[in-house]
Amino acid sequence: MSILKRLEEAPLGTRADLSEVLDVLPWNQQGLVAAIAQDATSKEVLMLGWMDRTAIERTLEERRVWYFSRSRNTYWRKGETSGHEQELVSMRFDCDGDALLLSVNQTGPACHTYRETCFYLSVDLSVDQSVDGGEIVVITEPTGSAG
Amino acid sequence: MSILKRLEEAPLGTRADLSEVLDVLPWNQQGLVAAIAQDATSKEVLMLGWMDRTAIERTLEERRVWYFSRSRNTYWRKGETSGHEQELVSMRFDCDGDALLLSVNQTGPACHTYRETCFYLSVDLSVDQSVDGGEIVVITEPTGSAG
Repeated sequence: MSILKRLEEAPLGTRADLSEVLDVLPWNQQGLVAAIAQDATSKEVLMLGWMDRTAIERTLEERRVWYFSRSRNTYWRKGETSGHEQELVSMRFDCDGDALLLSVNQTGPACHTYRETCFYLSVDLSVDQSVDGGEIVVITEPTGSAG
Repeated sequence: MSILKRLEEAPLGTRADLSEVLDVLPWNQQGLVAAIAQDATSKEVLMLGWMDRTAIERTLEERRVWYFSRSRNTYWRKGETSGHEQELVSMRFDCDGDALLLSVNQTGPACHTYRETCFYLSVDLSVDQSVDGGEIVVITEPTGSAG
């Protein structure tokens, strides 16, 4: 039985080696897992990034969040150019180990568009119940000095 | 310029056709995008699932969340066997369109282990700053009738 399966039934407070868990994570074909960043204070979901084992290691060592950029095929410390970094507050794995939840203290806006969150395109649920005829609405504006 | 790029600069309240946005989403090789489910009331992140266009369509039509199961290669309405369904409150896309944020009213526990959230394995940040020697802790217990 895999360690993740064993932990499903384990009592509260049960501990396991992090390296042992990382060894069995169902990394995708690129060796990545999805990483959700959530603001520790507001609980807003800020963004979804990707991490491999090295990005996880760097994040834990520095307590600042590193992602792996699929488009640029390189490691990327959030905020390394913008200054909008993420201090790590907690890191949690989900039951099947293919997703991470990062609680962070976000400096400045999380989105490259200078919005607080990347999730600013909202499906208008008031007008239609299907895709055809459905609409998306821009629900937040950039803050600060973007654009 | 893609519609997503145009919307980055668009004023608050700008509307776009949902179908046009879906046409340009950067679906992964399996035709999926990551979908984060967040409890509309508690703001807890409950789980990460996957959706294709059909799952999005069904979710909008029924206002109950459908995912695509990568392991079973089939559509799956959350709660169809457990009863632990998710009523859709809002659906948002992120800036680059490869992730969805679903705000939901969750019936019962979201996790198949009968925990409120799937993210119950927490890295212990108090003991070590690196992966070697690092530990994971089970931080919540099943609720109700699991196990």
